[in-house]
Amino acid sequence: MFDKVTLIGIGLIGSSLSHVMRREGLAKEISVSSRSQETLDRAKELNLGDHYHLDAAEAVKDADLVIVCTPVGACEAVAKTIAPALKKGAIVTDVGSVKASVIKQMKPHLPDTVHFVPGHPIAGTEYSGPDSGFASLFEGRWCVLTPEEGTDDAAVSSLTKFWETCGSNVETMEANHHDLVLAITSHLPHFIAYNIVGTADDLATDIKSEVIKFSASGFRDFTRLAASDPTMWRDVALHNKDAILETLGRFSEDLSDLQRAIRRDDGDKLFDMFTRTRGIRRSVIEMGQDVAAPNFGRDGEGDEPAS
Amino acid sequence: MFDKVTLIGIGLIGSSLSHVMRREGLAKEISVSSRSQETLDRAKELNLGDHYHLDAAEAVKDADLVIVCTPVGACEAVAKTIAPALKKGAIVTDVGSVKASVIKQMKPHLPDTVHFVPGHPIAGTEYSGPDSGFASLFEGRWCVLTPEEGTDDAAVSSLTKFWETCGSNVETMEANHHDLVLAITSHLPHFIAYNIVGTADDLATDIKSEVIKFSASGFRDFTRLAASDPTMWRDVALHNKDAILETLGRFSEDLSDLQRAIRRDDGDKLFDMFTRTRGIRRSVIEMGQDVAAPNFGRDGEGDEPAS
Repeated sequence: MFDKVTLIGIGLIGSSLSHVMRREGLAKEISVSSRSQETLDRAKELNLGDHYHLDAAEAVKDADLVIVCTPVGACEAVAKTIAPALKKGAIVTDVGSVKASVIKQMKPHLPDTVHFVPGHPIAGTEYSGPDSGFASLFEGRWCVLTPEEGTDDAAVSSLTKFWETCGSNVETMEANHHDLVLAITSHLPHFIAYNIVGTADDLATDIKSEVIKFSASGFRDFTRLAASDPTMWRDVALHNKDAILETLGRFSEDLSDLQRAIRRDDGDKLFDMFTRTRGIRRSVIEMGQDVAAPNFGRDGEGDEPAS
Repeated sequence: MFDKVTLIGIGLIGSSLSHVMRREGLAKEISVSSRSQETLDRAKELNLGDHYHLDAAEAVKDADLVIVCTPVGACEAVAKTIAPALKKGAIVTDVGSVKASVIKQMKPHLPDTVHFVPGHPIAGTEYSGPDSGFASLFEGRWCVLTPEEGTDDAAVSSLTKFWETCGSNVETMEANHHDLVLAITSHLPHFIAYNIVGTADDLATDIKSEVIKFSASGFRDFTRLAASDPTMWRDVALHNKDAILETLGRFSEDLSDLQRAIRRDDGDKLFDMFTRTRGIRRSVIEMGQDVAAPNFGRDGEGDEPAS
């Protein structure tokens, strides 16, 4: 599909893209760039690319498709570095969880001769780094593209086809809208998870060890999200600040309301609050966004209920 | 092990106990009681007992072990009902997620001729009702007993052996201590999950459908806990009020601190907050409380990372 694809950054998303591109024959040649020699060496051991470069400008030479797979805070520096070396007609995209900021960081530096189509594959795990990737990561998941008006249709189609071949369903939307939706579905849940695990981490040592010991009662679910890459999430917090603060504000108001209901022994209100949420779980499963098996089908705990 | 065991309440825990007791031959006879005729009929269809009673007093006659498997708010009424019918020397226990309140509700009504040993198997799924039980629910999970001082040693040993045969590791602790630990590991996570899903439920219809559509980005994890039984969780909120309000208070303070760091673009602080939580996830996995597979090993997303 492409003669040469360049991956700038080779963490979970970059390495997964490498695996799926190899499997699907999406690129004749894969060029890998990382700022860290250690990461680059590991990528080479894992055979994730055909060429390896510390210098991103070197890596993008002659590339038809450049995919920036770094934390979103690095996008401006990457754009500045690669701009002079980009091939005419190349497609430049990214995989960041925030879109308006990425556009603001990258667009002013990119030449008019390339097609800039920002993207976000909504897929991931709690692991990071070049070892964490796998070819099926994007299967059945959404990939959102946020091209600005006037972007070349052929470039958008080509990138759409690329992600579809990776197994994703592609949807196009406006960058700010993406950022608002993701603030609720992704950013808030991660920050809440980091926060609750942080609250537990602050406890006295003896209580903390008991919290870990008895974590199967609910707490363990949060520890997974809270094990995600700190650099990535720091950058998301800084680069989608307004939508996140707005969303955190709503959450906090609702939490005060819940706290008040508990303090006032308002059982009816609590029952209502705990009932309406079941419908959302049902919809999530119906939309194929989660499994119906109890406890996410964790090993040995996943017996399907009888009805 | 017991001639006759009575299950009062036949939801997830009661029905799972029935399955494991049958498998392990723990009871010659199982008597099932429920306040609802419909539930009792379903329990009969599922062959969960040998006798079925709407009246809990009828159900406990001649029982050697009585296990109260109702929401914690029903314990006082159950104790009053069964007290006159209990056999001399019987063991009475429960499975509630709150212990001090259960003791306060039940103990004054129970005769001195029975052995009251409150218990809490730390196991569950997001499903409820007589259909949701399965024999392996308690395997490898903790069961906490909170007998008061002076409780008959033989009764505690006997109940310990019972839970061990169900596959659990048994630990004894003081009721108030149990309630504090569980407020953090179980109650807070559930209320936070209910709250975040509630916040999403309040959104305008179009945004809400997108939140569900893109829920694989983090939100879906919370919908599982927020699909748990509303009656059970209403009762937990009302019956472990002080520990929960204290825990929610800590969480809220920490959340304000996080919000402040985002508003002030304090990247270093955010990075620290998002780093220290990884160690807790590691410990949870090392302690056998969760699986290491990415995304909890959900279907088709569970490829183990290369390292």
